[in-house]
Amino acid sequence: MRVRKRSGAEELIASYPQYVVDEPQKWKGRWTERFGNDQPIHIEIGMGKGQFIFGMAKAHPEINYIGIDMQTSVVSFALDKLIAEEVPNLQLLHVDGSELTNYFADSEVDQIYLNFSDPWPKSKHEKRRLTYKTFLAVDEQILRPAGELHFKTDNQGLFEYSLASFSQYGLIIQKVWLDLHASSYEGNIMTEYERKFSSKGQPIYRVEAKFPDKTKK
Amino acid sequence: MRVRKRSGAEELIASYPQYVVDEPQKWKGRWTERFGNDQPIHIEIGMGKGQFIFGMAKAHPEINYIGIDMQTSVVSFALDKLIAEEVPNLQLLHVDGSELTNYFADSEVDQIYLNFSDPWPKSKHEKRRLTYKTFLAVDEQILRPAGELHFKTDNQGLFEYSLASFSQYGLIIQKVWLDLHASSYEGNIMTEYERKFSSKGQPIYRVEAKFPDKTKK
Repeated sequence: MRVRKRSGAEELIASYPQYVVDEPQKWKGRWTERFGNDQPIHIEIGMGKGQFIFGMAKAHPEINYIGIDMQTSVVSFALDKLIAEEVPNLQLLHVDGSELTNYFADSEVDQIYLNFSDPWPKSKHEKRRLTYKTFLAVDEQILRPAGELHFKTDNQGLFEYSLASFSQYGLIIQKVWLDLHASSYEGNIMTEYERKFSSKGQPIYRVEAKFPDKTKK
Repeated sequence: MRVRKRSGAEELIASYPQYVVDEPQKWKGRWTERFGNDQPIHIEIGMGKGQFIFGMAKAHPEINYIGIDMQTSVVSFALDKLIAEEVPNLQLLHVDGSELTNYFADSEVDQIYLNFSDPWPKSKHEKRRLTYKTFLAVDEQILRPAGELHFKTDNQGLFEYSLASFSQYGLIIQKVWLDLHASSYEGNIMTEYERKFSSKGQPIYRVEAKFPDKTKK
């Protein structure tokens, strides 16, 4: 997600360590301790301004959510929402999505969301797509066995690519939506981008995919 | 494919056993003998009036094609094309797609095409869809190890369903097209339906999926 630079974003983040986790590597394997309960943990990689994860956390108090983004400005905008309205089951992480094994123990995460990830349309940039196999390997490591990845995007090329990438990695495709907003899917929480692009008539694609349960092999 | 009943269709089919194979069970395991060469064998299940398989056979003389349909009238319309223009690498089969193991030996087929199959949109009719697991099991049995299934449709619901059905069966999704005609895909041969629906602006969906290579396990 590209947003304008925000001056003072770093300082803002640093002043709210109760919301944007500082020294997140200290919580690896101990997130239930941080949340103070043993609810399932769902994370969003690339949360942008946080509208989705904020909405999910409020809609599902029985689940703990962690919103992750590497861009300082967008994390600060997500933080604004938490400052305005306390949501105890939501934490923010200002880290790089490719390094999540530093912050989560194996199998510590119950579900992963990817929403409107950067499509990186040029094939020479394939390795930067969050649905490329190296990212999937990180996801698999931190996810519980048979954990799910839920992905939505308005980008046709990225969606076509991701379905094949998931399948070739070994993920099982559980369900596909080629026009989410015209479907009977309930409980959809829109991201900022989703609201903007779908209002232009762009279909939203969605897929739920499950990692293989390696413990059963 | 629903087409009008054609009177005399059965008689017409019966008079051209060199094109519409009679007693096809006799050729099980011996199709190379029937074609008189050992070229790869590609089949289309549900060929309708045969425009696709006819076009493919003319474009690829190095491959043997077998067009299959259970409906008498549509087979007779496909036969019309063969009567009008001899295509030595094309044969037609007037049989039920669920019974293909009666007509093909294990691993005898190199590739399978499904085009614009009946969507059977009601969930109670799921078992009738040609991408349902029981049909995939037949496909897998007659296909060579790691053989591919190429499927296209204009039906969004059937395509969403089929991607998940393929993946859950164990097929690996190789490549997906969410708007085939707007893509860079070359060599597409249109079916009768495809021409009609795409001219109305309907996107055509396509997927290439590969069965697992069981010989490698």
